[in-house]
Amino acid sequence: MTAAPRGVAILGSTGSIGTTALRVLQRHPERFSVAALTAFSNSALLEEQVRQFHPSFVGIVQNGASTHETWACGAECLVKAVEHPDVSIVLNAVVGAAGLDATLAAVRAGKRVALANKETLVMAGPLVGEACRAGGGEIVPVDSEHSAILQCLAGRRPEDVRRLVLTASGGPFRAWPRERLQTATVADALQHPTWRMGRKITVDSATLANKALEVIEAHFLFGLSYDQIEVVVHPQSVVHSFVEMVDGSVLAQLGVPSMELPVLYALTHPERVHDTGVPPFDPVELSPLTFERVRSADFPALRLGIEAGRRGGAAPAVFNAANEQAVALFLDGRIRFGDIPRGIEAALAALGDADGRTRDALLAADERARRFVREMFAC
Amino acid sequence: MTAAPRGVAILGSTGSIGTTALRVLQRHPERFSVAALTAFSNSALLEEQVRQFHPSFVGIVQNGASTHETWACGAECLVKAVEHPDVSIVLNAVVGAAGLDATLAAVRAGKRVALANKETLVMAGPLVGEACRAGGGEIVPVDSEHSAILQCLAGRRPEDVRRLVLTASGGPFRAWPRERLQTATVADALQHPTWRMGRKITVDSATLANKALEVIEAHFLFGLSYDQIEVVVHPQSVVHSFVEMVDGSVLAQLGVPSMELPVLYALTHPERVHDTGVPPFDPVELSPLTFERVRSADFPALRLGIEAGRRGGAAPAVFNAANEQAVALFLDGRIRFGDIPRGIEAALAALGDADGRTRDALLAADERARRFVREMFAC
Repeated sequence: MTAAPRGVAILGSTGSIGTTALRVLQRHPERFSVAALTAFSNSALLEEQVRQFHPSFVGIVQNGASTHETWACGAECLVKAVEHPDVSIVLNAVVGAAGLDATLAAVRAGKRVALANKETLVMAGPLVGEACRAGGGEIVPVDSEHSAILQCLAGRRPEDVRRLVLTASGGPFRAWPRERLQTATVADALQHPTWRMGRKITVDSATLANKALEVIEAHFLFGLSYDQIEVVVHPQSVVHSFVEMVDGSVLAQLGVPSMELPVLYALTHPERVHDTGVPPFDPVELSPLTFERVRSADFPALRLGIEAGRRGGAAPAVFNAANEQAVALFLDGRIRFGDIPRGIEAALAALGDADGRTRDALLAADERARRFVREMFAC
Repeated sequence: MTAAPRGVAILGSTGSIGTTALRVLQRHPERFSVAALTAFSNSALLEEQVRQFHPSFVGIVQNGASTHETWACGAECLVKAVEHPDVSIVLNAVVGAAGLDATLAAVRAGKRVALANKETLVMAGPLVGEACRAGGGEIVPVDSEHSAILQCLAGRRPEDVRRLVLTASGGPFRAWPRERLQTATVADALQHPTWRMGRKITVDSATLANKALEVIEAHFLFGLSYDQIEVVVHPQSVVHSFVEMVDGSVLAQLGVPSMELPVLYALTHPERVHDTGVPPFDPVELSPLTFERVRSADFPALRLGIEAGRRGGAAPAVFNAANEQAVALFLDGRIRFGDIPRGIEAALAALGDADGRTRDALLAADERARRFVREMFAC
């Protein structure tokens, strides 16, 4: 290793993925440097990270009481971080549609985006693909399922793939009876059985909206049709996904549920580096591994999201925005758990055919879907 | 596909692997032709195969009553089949040490050996490696475990591998108490829970000698130290093996227990071709997948084989030959199941340090080990 370390921007550095990423980068100073950090609003933790990692650029979206003369402020700090000359890899760990412009700017500038912000691809997959081709950038997934698929496929021809099977933990309500689901509380929904993550994605895991977002993400990342992408429930979250090849062979990537490895691999792909972030694999300790069918009728968000993906245009953006808004209302205690898919379904019925050909059209559809859900529940 | 089909020689065409291979080749006539067939003694089935596939060369090791003027006879027919000009790939499905010369001849002639005859590599790994380098040939494994590892590694750098975990079904005696094992009958030993195979390898699966042979085979095939190769019991035989990379990521290849895919992949590697030989993968039907520690103390053949591998020289050949002889005596009803590892251990203690530097030295050690076991049991 004689090359200089590559500068990494972490968008969302104070969140779950962001703090994991800083641990990963700390173990590999000869390969990576922390070039830029941005946070949404947690200025206390951001300050601490800045003192420890000395990034060239610091940004905060919602500036609080404390003022930092050298920090960039507001939503536009994300794009500024991405465009900083010291940055060559962007870890986009922003939550939700707010991450779109940063992803587009990065790939247009020919940079790698390690993408934890799957909403970016869901709402604007074709635009992101176009920007990659135009600017020479690339998207490398951080989601454990997509990282698994990428690891299985690295070096293989895309036309050799017959089918993907994404695994889903099933979330905290996997075994709950249908009626009880309707009135599950916020506390119930935040009890994820295998993964510790942020609040929004944890609720998405409980509704299975997260798996719908992942199916759409996989469609765009790997260029496969929706008929080639399936979902199976795997409560232990050890097999991160399966890839079936055209000859019937099935490859999989496995490990204890931890984001250390997917974050590292998104930075190093297709290379591998010695790392100690995950404990040695012991299949006996992880035994048994079980698989179940998805209860599609009881978790309608999955079907709604996949239908939106097939529909294309602005429908995936509407699905995503309606879901984000409904989850926010649920977390605020203003709607019930069962209202989340109801809000998504109504928004898609009303707005799913909106124009989705440009960034502005998509952001407009996103905004209309959020308003629709708020008005539907009179919030 | 405009290239001419590649000629395949099947050594051991009337056995379990051989008949599977003919089914595989039949599905891919545009890629492969049956150029040569050899059998040990089943001339009736061989005749039928010849009528169906019209090979350029036919050989039989033990010629019976019926004489076939155009067939080659005797042990040397294997090497003749390999050297036939129409043959470019050799599927070596001979049982035991008898397959060695054919493997050496094939790789010296720059041909690919799809190797189901693992004994070849076990007894003479360094010689086979040398012959590959000298002649430009290559060994591609047919064993499902090694095929799995090769599929996980294809296109990856060998130095990126930290560890292999070979799975073992545990055989029919996985859950038998130690005392009962000593007197297990031939019928008991031939009841393999997941794989239908020939008699010799089925008994090897019951003693775990087969897994020792596979550890040694993996050592030579993938250039890994014995410390990097582990074995775990996996009764369902669905995960065919695990590969742990240097960053802690684990890759695996899975499928229903069937040799269709490993045989096909050994012919097409690193390419994949559309094939229908295995049913679509359904993890729910295959659930649960369980993993257990190996009962090493109760199945001493595994430890004895790995120790022989570490010792090197002629020790692996002695292990293999003593095992082959002991299994033959067991199948003949002349020794007990528990005598198999006893015979191996005694042969290794007496002969394990023999010279193993040449083919002739190895064959001499092989012969001495067989005689030792016969004399030990006064057979």
